[in-house]
Amino acid sequence: MNIVVQKYGGTSVGSTERIINVAKRIIAKKQSGHQVVVVVSAMGKTTDDLVKLAYDINPTPPKRELDRLLSTGEQISISLLSMALQALGHDAISFTGPQVGIRTSGRHTKSRIEGIDTTKILESLNDDKIVIIAGFQGVNENDDVTTLGRGGSDTSAVALACVLEAPCEIYTDVEGIYGVDPRLYPQAKKLNTVSYEEMLEMASLGAGVMHPRAIELGSKYDTPIWVASSELEIPGTIITKGENNMEGQSITGVAIDNDEIMITIRDVPFDRNITSQFFSQFATKSINIDMISQSAPIDDLINISFTAPASDLADAKKVLAAFQEKHPGIGVIINEQVSKLSVVGIGMRSQSGVAAKFFSLLADNNIQMLMITTSEIRISCIIPEKDKDLAVTATAQAFDL
Amino acid sequence: MNIVVQKYGGTSVGSTERIINVAKRIIAKKQSGHQVVVVVSAMGKTTDDLVKLAYDINPTPPKRELDRLLSTGEQISISLLSMALQALGHDAISFTGPQVGIRTSGRHTKSRIEGIDTTKILESLNDDKIVIIAGFQGVNENDDVTTLGRGGSDTSAVALACVLEAPCEIYTDVEGIYGVDPRLYPQAKKLNTVSYEEMLEMASLGAGVMHPRAIELGSKYDTPIWVASSELEIPGTIITKGENNMEGQSITGVAIDNDEIMITIRDVPFDRNITSQFFSQFATKSINIDMISQSAPIDDLINISFTAPASDLADAKKVLAAFQEKHPGIGVIINEQVSKLSVVGIGMRSQSGVAAKFFSLLADNNIQMLMITTSEIRISCIIPEKDKDLAVTATAQAFDL
Repeated sequence: MNIVVQKYGGTSVGSTERIINVAKRIIAKKQSGHQVVVVVSAMGKTTDDLVKLAYDINPTPPKRELDRLLSTGEQISISLLSMALQALGHDAISFTGPQVGIRTSGRHTKSRIEGIDTTKILESLNDDKIVIIAGFQGVNENDDVTTLGRGGSDTSAVALACVLEAPCEIYTDVEGIYGVDPRLYPQAKKLNTVSYEEMLEMASLGAGVMHPRAIELGSKYDTPIWVASSELEIPGTIITKGENNMEGQSITGVAIDNDEIMITIRDVPFDRNITSQFFSQFATKSINIDMISQSAPIDDLINISFTAPASDLADAKKVLAAFQEKHPGIGVIINEQVSKLSVVGIGMRSQSGVAAKFFSLLADNNIQMLMITTSEIRISCIIPEKDKDLAVTATAQAFDL
Repeated sequence: MNIVVQKYGGTSVGSTERIINVAKRIIAKKQSGHQVVVVVSAMGKTTDDLVKLAYDINPTPPKRELDRLLSTGEQISISLLSMALQALGHDAISFTGPQVGIRTSGRHTKSRIEGIDTTKILESLNDDKIVIIAGFQGVNENDDVTTLGRGGSDTSAVALACVLEAPCEIYTDVEGIYGVDPRLYPQAKKLNTVSYEEMLEMASLGAGVMHPRAIELGSKYDTPIWVASSELEIPGTIITKGENNMEGQSITGVAIDNDEIMITIRDVPFDRNITSQFFSQFATKSINIDMISQSAPIDDLINISFTAPASDLADAKKVLAAFQEKHPGIGVIINEQVSKLSVVGIGMRSQSGVAAKFFSLLADNNIQMLMITTSEIRISCIIPEKDKDLAVTATAQAFDL
């Protein structure tokens, strides 16, 4: 057995011509001596169109029905891809998520894969068939189709690779993974390798190429994940363990996030009950607090700064108003014109001075750091939004990204 | 239990507005004290669009994959209809054919319903839910989705009505069933009732409102089938046993079919082996012979006329050429400019002189009858295609259709 799992995204199967091109790539892989399992997304903007239809009919579409609706997009693309392969003279068979036993749990539209039954897949591979599986979907304990949320097809592909003990190749409309978004920094270099940990930090920071759950799964099963272009014949990026950090890079990536706001509350009594009540009010409103920094107490008063998604501003203001009513001495400052700049790299563990280099870089460019948080392999800081392009370019140049 | 099965066709659910209108009609039915099971077709031209996509990719699309592709149309409409009902405050649940246990057998794209498991349907009805089921599809012994062929949603609806022992209401873009196509004869009258037998003859004759298999099922289980407009609040037509022929009509319907050709072979030796070999050659080519008439032998030679679908002309010519090569004395005449005119009515059984009236009607209008065949409740004759409009109008007027 020399199985490989390939995944093609919505753009890659966005037209009949593209589906035929994808079929040719799959055949080339098979002819190079592999047994190929293919996961496909819905064609182009199909899913967006279906979501719009649903909201036209019901502003709060019931999620079970929404899942059924959305799951049709992948059923269309798998059957068309199977037809294309058969038109080119290769035996192929398509399966839906439910049909191939991708069992899920959890809420509709956001379910998680619990397990996969490989029987039908292995039988079909042994019959020399190319196996095509609908991404993004599975079946729950009620025999209802469920979907895995945005980027769910990546998760389907990596999960299949894990249970089949095969490598996973993600084909997409980018050439690989970059340390910095080429739309922000055109000279950006493609990475040859990147570690699961770095990808997890970069994905959650908004680099957006791969879904974090797919990376987590790959990391858990130690399944190598290739990310490459579905159009071009160039090597992409491999996501793997990467403990060795062979390339000696201190920083692998830089990311910028403009969808956050920074909130500061001043002169808060230094009392852990007050602080915890404050943040639990945010949790009650489902506002996702990201960075938090708290100053040391002076005269038993502290300042707390934190960031939250810009989309939660209205809700956040309500919580803040209620809090001020209860504690009239407290001041509130909301800063909407901020960006979160982050640098990521497992090299930080072994190389000292990365933080110092990063901070002096920003200082040299007259960029204020309004807040700073760090983890073992990441440094994030809040900067004025007006400086974001300068910050990305300066960082990318300084760290040779 | 006071169950009713309703079926809405593709035009009736062709837009979000229409889906909401359909939802309102379903709710009205429920509020009048019924438990409602709804079968829906794919929206508007969805199925045609999917077929086109398939043929763009593969000129002979594998049927298993084609079935999967086509089955998505109904999945979209059932989920949207369920969303619409829930938006209007009524609990609803949708099921695909496979999910609700509509078991099929036979070939992909032309499968037949073997049985239906009513457990989930009855459970959901008892939970006071409106149950929405995807028409046109089921699941075969391999756990693959299959489709029932053109008009399959009618068959799904009637089959559900049969197993639920409920009446079936077919809502469509016509106001009911007419004895003659209103496009051919604008003064056509809508029928209040029509018998299964008459509908079977009319459907196979090309009246086209209902799929013959749906009628057969209704007849077998004695399930009343209403056909009515999905837009207008007017009574439609009920298809039922109708032995009584209360209305005393001698003829219920007239139909015209322009897609046939008439072939005559002359001077054929009167030898049953030759005749049977001749027709078995047509069967081998899957050419569906319809009407056949054979003259009495003169000098041990006979003439045979028969009709076949116009689309099979090329194949028919090959068979005829081979036959002439073997039997050089035989003459062949092909007439493509013909139409088949048929009148149908269970009244023919009890009323004499219907055939005579029909034939003299054609004679009075100078319309040649090139071939005639009759059954217990039907008379068909081949006429020159140029006379078809005159023939339909004259017949409709004479028999008050």
